[in-house]
Amino acid sequence: MTKVKVFTNILKANENIAQKNRDIFDKNKVYTINLMSSPGSGKTSLLERTIDLIKNELRVAVLEGDLQTDNDAQRIEKYGIPVVQINTNGACHLDANMVESVLESFNFKEIDLFVIENVGNLVCPASFELGEHDKVVMVSIPEGDDKPIKYPVMFRKAKVLLVNKIDLLPYTNFNMSKIKKDAMSINPEIKIFEISCRTGEGLDIWVDWLKEQVRKKFTG
Amino acid sequence: MTKVKVFTNILKANENIAQKNRDIFDKNKVYTINLMSSPGSGKTSLLERTIDLIKNELRVAVLEGDLQTDNDAQRIEKYGIPVVQINTNGACHLDANMVESVLESFNFKEIDLFVIENVGNLVCPASFELGEHDKVVMVSIPEGDDKPIKYPVMFRKAKVLLVNKIDLLPYTNFNMSKIKKDAMSINPEIKIFEISCRTGEGLDIWVDWLKEQVRKKFTG
Repeated sequence: MTKVKVFTNILKANENIAQKNRDIFDKNKVYTINLMSSPGSGKTSLLERTIDLIKNELRVAVLEGDLQTDNDAQRIEKYGIPVVQINTNGACHLDANMVESVLESFNFKEIDLFVIENVGNLVCPASFELGEHDKVVMVSIPEGDDKPIKYPVMFRKAKVLLVNKIDLLPYTNFNMSKIKKDAMSINPEIKIFEISCRTGEGLDIWVDWLKEQVRKKFTG
Repeated sequence: MTKVKVFTNILKANENIAQKNRDIFDKNKVYTINLMSSPGSGKTSLLERTIDLIKNELRVAVLEGDLQTDNDAQRIEKYGIPVVQINTNGACHLDANMVESVLESFNFKEIDLFVIENVGNLVCPASFELGEHDKVVMVSIPEGDDKPIKYPVMFRKAKVLLVNKIDLLPYTNFNMSKIKKDAMSINPEIKIFEISCRTGEGLDIWVDWLKEQVRKKFTG
């Protein structure tokens, strides 16, 4: 009972800070997504591919969240866009306060799309608003088609489900119809894109959707 | 500061209960492992294969931890061994108290090996002792070879690293030498087994190791 109360208070305090972050994004007309998945689903690979496809049209910046290392930020830095790495030192998710603490490193007047790559974890990040406009969850083929029903919170809150590594479909017993049906039973509004960050398949549709969100968000 | 203190107190209380659980295992000569990985690495498949290989020699029982559903327990039940499912209702790991609450469902006098399959999560479960004798962490090929350096806590505490889905090696750029080197730099004592729960490759060595631990634990 006490534990629940502590957690509720933490979440409430977090949401207040998240709203302040969101105000900064709104004021500067920056569309912000919170990208979440298990470790190794391909979040950073998605960012690499997406930046490559989008950088001539939109100004992108990235915030990387990891327990340790700045490997992911180093991968993104090669694309010549603004990137900041947060190391949580063991904490299993980003929170609004961590994000707030690095926002002044970015010049949001010169950014259209801000992507926050959360810590690899299909559970905890779902509970902590960072100030994003939309949540994007990624699952990869080798993880199996049962993830939505086993980890429903993340899928309930996501605007988009990316099913990555479809190049590995022939080598698994993954059932694409099942994951789509399960995800939509939890969240009927969820958009689902089948992609491979390895081969590039499906990424054009994802990138078109992303560009549309940026346009819609601040041009009405 | 306050948050850290709460967490420390929670961990301390958890360890006290874990020790009581361990006393029950010891008294009944039951070797207990805590099996952890990201979602979809193949924990339940490993259990299915292991039970099949070991059930004529050892009496096995399983405790399944999941956020939702009893899918995993249903899979194990088919093998005709004792299995209990805990649903954490959103909590991202098992704790000693949850385990303690279901121990009376098992007749430990008739069990040699007790496997606790934790919630799929490469971060949080590492911090919560359940009363197990050893921790086993699993990573699968499609997750990538960078998991030990990015999620070191889990690897530091594990007795064994299982590298699963080696049948997918030809379709990825996974570097087996790198993951071994990284895991051993974090934990020089860690045992590493390369396995495929799909093809069965490597499982004989894992099962031999497991049988040896059961023998060593209670026959000296």
